Amino acid sequence: MWQYGFGIPDELFIRGSVPMTKQEIRVLSLSKMRLKSDSIVWDIGAGTGSVSVEAAVHCREGMVFAIEKNPEAIKLLKENQKAFEVKNMEIVCGQAPDALSNLPCPDSIFIGGTGDFTEEILETAAERLTPCGIIVANAIAIDTLCSLQGFFKVRCWERDITLANISTSKQVKGKTMMFAHNPIYIFAARKPEDSKKAEEPLYE
Amino acid sequence: MWQYGFGIPDELFIRGSVPMTKQEIRVLSLSKMRLKSDSIVWDIGAGTGSVSVEAAVHCREGMVFAIEKNPEAIKLLKENQKAFEVKNMEIVCGQAPDALSNLPCPDSIFIGGTGDFTEEILETAAERLTPCGIIVANAIAIDTLCSLQGFFKVRCWERDITLANISTSKQVKGKTMMFAHNPIYIFAARKPEDSKKAEEPLYE
Amino acid sequence: MWQYGFGIPDELFIRGSVPMTKQEIRVLSLSKMRLKSDSIVWDIGAGTGSVSVEAAVHCREGMVFAIEKNPEAIKLLKENQKAFEVKNMEIVCGQAPDALSNLPCPDSIFIGGTGDFTEEILETAAERLTPCGIIVANAIAIDTLCSLQGFFKVRCWERDITLANISTSKQVKGKTMMFAHNPIYIFAARKPEDSKKAEEPLYE
Amino acid sequence: MWQYGFGIPDELFIRGSVPMTKQEIRVLSLSKMRLKSDSIVWDIGAGTGSVSVEAAVHCREGMVFAIEKNPEAIKLLKENQKAFEVKNMEIVCGQAPDALSNLPCPDSIFIGGTGDFTEEILETAAERLTPCGIIVANAIAIDTLCSLQGFFKVRCWERDITLANISTSKQVKGKTMMFAHNPIYIFAARKPEDSKKAEEPLYE
Repeated sequence: MWQYGFGIPDELFIRGSVPMTKQEIRVLSLSKMRLKSDSIVWDIGAGTGSVSVEAAVHCREGMVFAIEKNPEAIKLLKENQKAFEVKNMEIVCGQAPDALSNLPCPDSIFIGGTGDFTEEILETAAERLTPCGIIVANAIAIDTLCSLQGFFKVRCWERDITLANISTSKQVKGKTMMFAHNPIYIFAARKPEDSKKAEEPLYE
Repeated sequence: MWQYGFGIPDELFIRGSVPMTKQEIRVLSLSKMRLKSDSIVWDIGAGTGSVSVEAAVHCREGMVFAIEKNPEAIKLLKENQKAFEVKNMEIVCGQAPDALSNLPCPDSIFIGGTGDFTEEILETAAERLTPCGIIVANAIAIDTLCSLQGFFKVRCWERDITLANISTSKQVKGKTMMFAHNPIYIFAARKPEDSKKAEEPLYE
Repeated sequence: MWQYGFGIPDELFIRGSVPMTKQEIRVLSLSKMRLKSDSIVWDIGAGTGSVSVEAAVHCREGMVFAIEKNPEAIKLLKENQKAFEVKNMEIVCGQAPDALSNLPCPDSIFIGGTGDFTEEILETAAERLTPCGIIVANAIAIDTLCSLQGFFKVRCWERDITLANISTSKQVKGKTMMFAHNPIYIFAARKPEDSKKAEEPLYE
Repeated sequence: MWQYGFGIPDELFIRGSVPMTKQEIRVLSLSKMRLKSDSIVWDIGAGTGSVSVEAAVHCREGMVFAIEKNPEAIKLLKENQKAFEVKNMEIVCGQAPDALSNLPCPDSIFIGGTGDFTEEILETAAERLTPCGIIVANAIAIDTLCSLQGFFKVRCWERDITLANISTSKQVKGKTMMFAHNPIYIFAARKPEDSKKAEEPLYE
């Protein structure tokens, strides 16, 4: 069980070859998602589940849906859910946006950095998101950044974009070397209050 | 009252001309401090109190001591404590290290980025910190970084250093411009378990 | 007269309130422009002329055209040309793309970071550029970056994009502080060899 | 033969497993060295010789001394000197500071980023450098940065320090991804005019 605030170290997660949102980017992304103790969260393309797990640890009375299609990642998701003993997390096997249709409307949505999402996924996410809810997407490709900027600019959502160039230390031959992570855009967009509310399916 | 995780927006704090740890750096620093719900925290040179307030919001059953000597900052500290309705935060008016002598031993210590701390303050902080506790210091000057590196290297504390180059967006004439914050080192050092435990004064 | 390689310090230029490409970004941009001693260069939106002057110093047997519409900037351009005693530089007063129509075809084109260029200017620049020639544009807005990416991706030009987060030192109260410049994309695109060569007007 | 300004692409150098100063950092470092056409340059720990070769291309009437002890690197140095057809470059096999004793006094000195230099090397470099000459050292370890800061602060040399966080693009599955290079300090220090001039050995 993790008993601290955001910031589970990367090495505590069970990892395969599936890409993972690194600690510092995860912390910043979670902070931009404005999670409450009872938030409903979607993590689209959850990968190893590092964001899902941290969100679930924080939203003790809420629910996190980790949507993932890759069987290898789903296996890791299950292992990490078990390792961190989070009950309020549901692994949804399937491809977005289809896999999203039966889920309850989320207060916050996270979309990881692989950039494999389509305009179609963004549309479903934006439609189903609670008014005033927040979508946080990580972009490591210029093309992904431009898709996000285009999508949310047209819709006039309030945007809060962070470019993070993070380096972390490692001891090498008695010296402290700084190693760079690739630059990542943490793209947060807030849904307007008055946008027509999406129909909410029953959550049972 | 702040009901989300780490990451109170800068503009929610009452601010004067006193420097403030910005949201993204604050979030990363807090995450490195490994705060528990019942942690005892020192914030040395608390300034406007943004770190103290966020730490107090998180450590509901713990206690945060905001140490500050500057009267203007102390005024802001009080206003922010009130605005965020945090009860588990005590403002300690005075100069470190003297002002630290009657405080209970902390589990985590934060030292802000102004670099006004002395070797003497670091020594007191290191001595009084609970074994396995963490000191997080922000360095924006090369000289401060080198002081920290020298201090903790000699003592063989485990170090986890993050260099954060963060830029945030602003809308300018219909375009999204990225504005850089100065590069900051978030220097986290963990006290070894077996270092001689400091004498703990009574906390009443 | 500047007798060194790329890298004229910012403070050697006469400056007004017109934005200027800073030393480090200018050096990187010039290096990506692949200037030869006899290159024909266009500097579109030349501003204070820092890039034009450095290019002219390097291309001693070539010619640099500094295109600018703003009267205040044109005044600075003239002063800087005089101060650095560069003869092989011509100030072209007027608005691109119209002002470009009578200029000889360039081997390299520079477009500064203000992002005030239009698709129309890019089209003229791309058409008139010598095959294998290089356009270097600086983008500080996400929208500008996306325009450049879209424009050159469609045309299948080879792209070499550099994201530069540069900080420089200043002495403050006996300490060395690092101050960040805003992140800039140095977007270099090379025209394919076999693209239909533009008609070259006489240069007299 | 390279016929452009600073900025030879990395892939044009013959490389082994020896570390090489990357293009963008090389360009910035060379620009800070204030090279004239007739400069005498020392490249201490020349590695593959990328800085030596670019300096020699620029200082056509000057001379570049590439000092290196590692036999594998010396082989690469020779190959690159040949590939770029630079005559005004001399490879000095041996260990600094001993290997420096018979060289002519330099106008500019470059020390690469491996951080393998000692205080002894810095002392010899500083002593032998021409008054107003410049030492540029690259630091990728915090310890190296602190050594440089300590060394030149005590001696009151004017310092111009650049922290470069550079990312470059690569096409991956049809997308433009940005890949980060590790953060590097380009530490430039200028020798005061009135420091006692070192004895200059004959250069024959």
